Order: sequence, then C-alpha cells, then structure tokens
Amino acid sequence: MPKKERKRLQVVISEEQDALLTKTAYELSSPERLISKSEVVRLAIEKIAKDLEAGGESTEEYRALLEDEDIKDD
Amino acid sequence: MPKKERKRLQVVISEEQDALLTKTAYELSSPERLISKSEVVRLAIEKIAKDLEAGGESTEEYRALLEDEDIKDD
Repeated sequence: MPKKERKRLQVVISEEQDALLTKTAYELSSPERLISKSEVVRLAIEKIAKDLEAGGESTEEYRALLEDEDIKDD
Repeated sequence: MPKKERKRLQVVISEEQDALLTKTAYELSSPERLISKSEVVRLAIEKIAKDLEAGGESTEEYRALLEDEDIKDD
C-alpha cells in the first residue's frame, strides 16, 4: 500500500471471524505469494463497497447478514 | 456481539478505504438502525469467507483484486 494517507483501523472481532480471516488468507495464498490477514480485510472492504455499488440483491442480503449476533455491535 | 471470545484486530487502511467504509455503513443504515464501520468490517469478513466457500469464479476474482497497490502489504 502506498505510504501516504493511511489510517489505523481497530475492530473487535469474534474468534470465529479471526479463524475465518486466517482461513481466507490461506485460501488466497499461493506458493508464490503469501496473503496476510490485513490484506484480506482491505480486500473485503473493497469488495463489499463494489457489491453495493453494483446494486441488485446485495443490499438486502447484507442487511439480513447484519442481524447476526456475531456482527452486531452491543 | 457476544461478550466472550473476542479479538482486537488492527489494520492499516488507505484514506479511500476509510471513505468506502463510511459510505458502506451509511448505505446499510436505515432510520431504524445505524450501522457502524466495525459492523461493516465484520460483515465483510464473513462475506468474503462465504464467497470463497461457495467456490466458482470468486477465488480468481479475489486474487486479481489483491494485485491492487492499495490492498497489498508493503
């Protein structure tokens, strides 16, 4: 990532979500390129914004997922 | 999110990604329910894992996005 204009993001996640991150990083890695959990988070942020921009059913699908206890804030 | 079994995640993101997070949180919010940027990140983590599990073209699409300078680690 380019050095300038960066922000530090802090998020509390569940142990299951941490495990999902590790699994996703492993699945996207190859013998030529290891993917970090940070890269997965940045990728996930870009993807969700892209999906919503594309429209269609995404918004309703995401709103439904937001009702999951593991995603909601307290 | 349930109180137990939590982890603190720290990720450096670009200003553009921070703006995408804010925009996504706004788009998923409604007059009845405000969505935080943390909720968007947790949602995005769940979604990317789900997509990869479903298989199909997702893996290659994600690998291509990973080549973006704004996603890569230094």
